[in-house]
Amino acid sequence: MESEYKIRRRVEFAETDMAGIMHFSHFFRYMEVAETEFFRSLGLTLIDRTGNQTYGWPRVRAKCDYHHPLRFGEEVEIHLYVKEIKVRAINFFFRFRRCVEGGESIAIAKGEITTVCATLNEDTMEIVSMAIPEDVLAKIEQSSRENWKDQSTDS
Amino acid sequence: MESEYKIRRRVEFAETDMAGIMHFSHFFRYMEVAETEFFRSLGLTLIDRTGNQTYGWPRVRAKCDYHHPLRFGEEVEIHLYVKEIKVRAINFFFRFRRCVEGGESIAIAKGEITTVCATLNEDTMEIVSMAIPEDVLAKIEQSSRENWKDQSTDS
Amino acid sequence: MESEYKIRRRVEFAETDMAGIMHFSHFFRYMEVAETEFFRSLGLTLIDRTGNQTYGWPRVRAKCDYHHPLRFGEEVEIHLYVKEIKVRAINFFFRFRRCVEGGESIAIAKGEITTVCATLNEDTMEIVSMAIPEDVLAKIEQSSRENWKDQSTDS
Amino acid sequence: MESEYKIRRRVEFAETDMAGIMHFSHFFRYMEVAETEFFRSLGLTLIDRTGNQTYGWPRVRAKCDYHHPLRFGEEVEIHLYVKEIKVRAINFFFRFRRCVEGGESIAIAKGEITTVCATLNEDTMEIVSMAIPEDVLAKIEQSSRENWKDQSTDS
Repeated sequence: MESEYKIRRRVEFAETDMAGIMHFSHFFRYMEVAETEFFRSLGLTLIDRTGNQTYGWPRVRAKCDYHHPLRFGEEVEIHLYVKEIKVRAINFFFRFRRCVEGGESIAIAKGEITTVCATLNEDTMEIVSMAIPEDVLAKIEQSSRENWKDQSTDS
Repeated sequence: MESEYKIRRRVEFAETDMAGIMHFSHFFRYMEVAETEFFRSLGLTLIDRTGNQTYGWPRVRAKCDYHHPLRFGEEVEIHLYVKEIKVRAINFFFRFRRCVEGGESIAIAKGEITTVCATLNEDTMEIVSMAIPEDVLAKIEQSSRENWKDQSTDS
Repeated sequence: MESEYKIRRRVEFAETDMAGIMHFSHFFRYMEVAETEFFRSLGLTLIDRTGNQTYGWPRVRAKCDYHHPLRFGEEVEIHLYVKEIKVRAINFFFRFRRCVEGGESIAIAKGEITTVCATLNEDTMEIVSMAIPEDVLAKIEQSSRENWKDQSTDS
Repeated sequence: MESEYKIRRRVEFAETDMAGIMHFSHFFRYMEVAETEFFRSLGLTLIDRTGNQTYGWPRVRAKCDYHHPLRFGEEVEIHLYVKEIKVRAINFFFRFRRCVEGGESIAIAKGEITTVCATLNEDTMEIVSMAIPEDVLAKIEQSSRENWKDQSTDS
């Protein structure tokens, strides 16, 4: 079961470093933007309320493998896949592909973010994991099924 | 009436851009770090509570004049001056000087931040300015006077 | 003589701070993105070569006045105006307006960046200002005139 | 064979996000600062020249596991360990521990960066890996041995 969603970004001047390439830390921001837009496409947002509680999605794991650099002004497509949904957590997988005008895109990097549904206990100031709200779960799973159907139709 | 406080920073790799120099936007982060440390030196913090309200210091104006670039690994001294205190706002002035081993430091940039004491109205979600709490005002003014006395003694 | 160009951005999660609003330093990155896109619209880029020299656009001044905050997910329009062109420098002016669905946009901030055309002297490692290349100047001035004509026609 | 080096940082206001905690992407910048300072402690720098070539250390892999959040103003110790040295690459391991006044520090996160020694081929603009220069290798290995001896003496 896999959901795919994609966005495009152009590397900003402020995101380059003195080696002339996009600093490796910004790939994590780009993953988060893809996740944000995926949520938005489902009518969801990264910080929300359920009942009388505010909840969010703190990260418990993030990683990235870099194959080729990105340079200022280059356009990159970030593909998001819902790799696994658990009761309290989602594991997103990402592929970065550099857009090439009139040609095939080039694999730049791949990454992963594991994020936990959590609320803030205002007494202890501790972040406490919670079950993903049912409507959120339903929307993400629905998007996965639709995506799976799209892919079946394609082949 | 002028209060001076200073900190040192070394330019990080992630703060450089492809032109090989510190990106101009990071000078504003450096000013804020100097302000934070100045507050800390007085036992204050940028987000605090007074009575049953949380208040902070949103910025209404920021500017920077750049004379010379900073490069990766260079050490810079950020001097903070309390230029003006009003009922609801403070105007900080900053000088950036690059440290030169065994020599005189070099003027790199100068900046200014005007910050307003404000609280969040949770009904309207509007940020509302408020008078600077008296104990905060007293500490900042006290620091200015002491600094002034130090400088008198020096001369 | 005024040239206008505009882009849209949506505030990212990573751009917010603990006060729940976009950190003031990111407004300067947004101005730079507008400038980059303006250059791109003219077939220009922020780092380029003329003859056998690489040149860029270091900033000598940047400032911003903040009227209202921006929050996560809000969409903002950044309007760029070429305020003044000198032999070696350009002064850009920016307006930030928050997009309101089905309504009028709201003034959020205004800013200014003065940027100098400069090359790196590889012997002394000094950044040296130079006259803006003629073809660059022509394109920017042309865009201003066209824009001016558009505005005349509108009224 | 393990080398340990550590630095301290205080979480900046600009590094927090609207969830009130340090944004997860900044942990990668902190790792890089620890690496930079480790290099500096050995008389090395992240961008250097050997013969007539400029070389640097692009990342091929980065990851982080987050156990607890960091908040504005909190002090954190970043411990760097040289986990593995290969002919062309180094694998650094990092532990983040939050400093607690008068108490034991708390495990916040652990991370890893694999970095490759590489030069830029100016004809093809490709980044090409190279063997780590011998003097660089010698210094890093020496630091590991000394560290190992320190630890033997301790126990």
